[in-house]
Amino acid sequence: MHTVSIELGARHYSIYIGGGLLSQAERYAGFRNRSCRLMTDRNVAGHYLEPVRRMLNLEAVHSLVLPAGESQKTFENTGRVLDWLLETRTPRDGVLLALGGGVVGDLAGFAAAIYLRGIDFVQLPTTLLAQVDSSVGGKTGVNHAQGKNMIGAFHQPRAVITDLDTLKTLPPRELRAGLAEVIKYGMLDGPGFFGWLEQNLDTLLALEPAALAEAVERCCVLKARLVTEDEREAGPRTLLNLGHTFAHAIETHTDYRAWLHGEAVAVGLCMAADLSARLGWMPRPEAERCTQLVARAGLPTRPPKGLEPARWLELMGHDKKIQSGRLRLVLLKSLGTAVVSSDFDDGRLNETLEHFGSPSPVSRLPSPAA
Amino acid sequence: MHTVSIELGARHYSIYIGGGLLSQAERYAGFRNRSCRLMTDRNVAGHYLEPVRRMLNLEAVHSLVLPAGESQKTFENTGRVLDWLLETRTPRDGVLLALGGGVVGDLAGFAAAIYLRGIDFVQLPTTLLAQVDSSVGGKTGVNHAQGKNMIGAFHQPRAVITDLDTLKTLPPRELRAGLAEVIKYGMLDGPGFFGWLEQNLDTLLALEPAALAEAVERCCVLKARLVTEDEREAGPRTLLNLGHTFAHAIETHTDYRAWLHGEAVAVGLCMAADLSARLGWMPRPEAERCTQLVARAGLPTRPPKGLEPARWLELMGHDKKIQSGRLRLVLLKSLGTAVVSSDFDDGRLNETLEHFGSPSPVSRLPSPAA
Repeated sequence: MHTVSIELGARHYSIYIGGGLLSQAERYAGFRNRSCRLMTDRNVAGHYLEPVRRMLNLEAVHSLVLPAGESQKTFENTGRVLDWLLETRTPRDGVLLALGGGVVGDLAGFAAAIYLRGIDFVQLPTTLLAQVDSSVGGKTGVNHAQGKNMIGAFHQPRAVITDLDTLKTLPPRELRAGLAEVIKYGMLDGPGFFGWLEQNLDTLLALEPAALAEAVERCCVLKARLVTEDEREAGPRTLLNLGHTFAHAIETHTDYRAWLHGEAVAVGLCMAADLSARLGWMPRPEAERCTQLVARAGLPTRPPKGLEPARWLELMGHDKKIQSGRLRLVLLKSLGTAVVSSDFDDGRLNETLEHFGSPSPVSRLPSPAA
Repeated sequence: MHTVSIELGARHYSIYIGGGLLSQAERYAGFRNRSCRLMTDRNVAGHYLEPVRRMLNLEAVHSLVLPAGESQKTFENTGRVLDWLLETRTPRDGVLLALGGGVVGDLAGFAAAIYLRGIDFVQLPTTLLAQVDSSVGGKTGVNHAQGKNMIGAFHQPRAVITDLDTLKTLPPRELRAGLAEVIKYGMLDGPGFFGWLEQNLDTLLALEPAALAEAVERCCVLKARLVTEDEREAGPRTLLNLGHTFAHAIETHTDYRAWLHGEAVAVGLCMAADLSARLGWMPRPEAERCTQLVARAGLPTRPPKGLEPARWLELMGHDKKIQSGRLRLVLLKSLGTAVVSSDFDDGRLNETLEHFGSPSPVSRLPSPAA
């Protein structure tokens, strides 16, 4: 088992990474004697609800199973979770466990943040995307028709228990979606990790345990560093949004239904790399390597059809990073050197939007919406 | 003008207390150049919406007027406020101003806490209750059918601008409700302030400016001390809940409609004093002085009819202060010496509940529900 620490003073916690952790009683030792509540979704419930309930000796009423999918991450569903916490008389010293992917984790974390003005929660991420990204760092929240993650809170979990064995039951499409965030970390970390990913991509797709453990740990270490430096995203943590302004526009445009978050991020990474190259900031061959790695992972490199530049700008106009009316984007100077900037030529941005807006003559990848 | 500072490091802020402050341009200087949004209720809007909008040069769409009353403080209405903030494209560096009483302040503060994971907000309290209590300290939240303030967040305002002139337009019933919290501070602070209140109650009811300013400042100073010591209410801040466990039960029982919060607190103070005396902790004559001061302020000293002990215990069973299934109450050893305790005789609590549950033969006060 690997352990990554998030050092945030009174809010410090550990990420435990390894195989079979969900079935190890000692992982639950820190909170099993408190009033536990368990949230998951229907897909995950079929595999892991009963084993985890048994570990915690939970009554049926103390677990909540929601439908699966990003479209469930709503303010209304937050209300349903809060109703359930109240109906089951969850006390202030209770613990809410989030068993599932990013949707379950973000929704449970947000409910835990505002129930009784904040109770403890624990992440049990079962998707690659949640394991490398959304379960770590305390960003919680839900979507709004006008934008992704527009409503939420910073609320750190008390622990993250990452059982890599859960990836064996993950649908391949979800595994690839998680790889998009892994590639993002590669682009942020630099040629070392990025090159490692180029070499080990097939091993990761084959779920080779040692490679998975190394990839998850490297991502968590990088995220831990940025979160520790900047918990509330006033500075360096913003870099973790590489590709995400484009991605959120795609998700909002498609009503959080057709695309997985990671698929939208994949396209966003390609667009951020393209714009960085058009600006003359990143060497074009490096940008091409990013797109190629995304494509090799079986991820889309093009947005859905019908997204005109004007619609892109409207959708991106809701971005949380906007300051004084000016869009800010995470862009690359090179692999491993990212910046948050509003100081870019709008003409180049338009070129990127137009380039990605027109149907690609060479793309042979199936649309994820299909 | 008096200024009370809340020292919370990066979240420090000032409370400005005085007459006519809402019409002083310099009070808005810290944020008038940012994207401001203004929330209020229908009662307050008639008096102060236009003057404040003019000070801030606000377009009509940038202010939101809600119906008045505690029953508006819901999760659903939080959603409406968030919709409005999104529709008007409020940026992350925007400022939400809460012009009104505790309901507007708690609802606006909660919306500000979770919009884009937290934006700045400023309190402009226009009721005595908000000026001495709810606008200070960063507790925000909304009610649930199963309990008062069950959903919320700790989110400090950037400033509190307390214009005492607004009390001139406050309905007398609301003024008295605010006095309940003032009396609470007297009971917590000790014989000095409590005796001052006994002497100055009529002057306060007559809205004498110097007396009002002194009362509001003394309450804010006491609250500032407790909030600074214990922002997230893990210890001494809990004392501010004196009378509130009983009060919240009354409010939940009456569906947040018939009673004002301060009226319920008034009864709660009498019940806390009575129980403290029954336990032999507080001298009975001191408990009587508390009840007498409450009655002199024109506030109820008895709960609504029909609240049986079993129903009391059920309602109080949702209290946020419950630990390991055991009810904790703020009780008094004497005027000025309060404790949070679960170490009391349940028989005495039952006596208090039965005593207050039966119709009082001597009470000649009209029911606030009438």
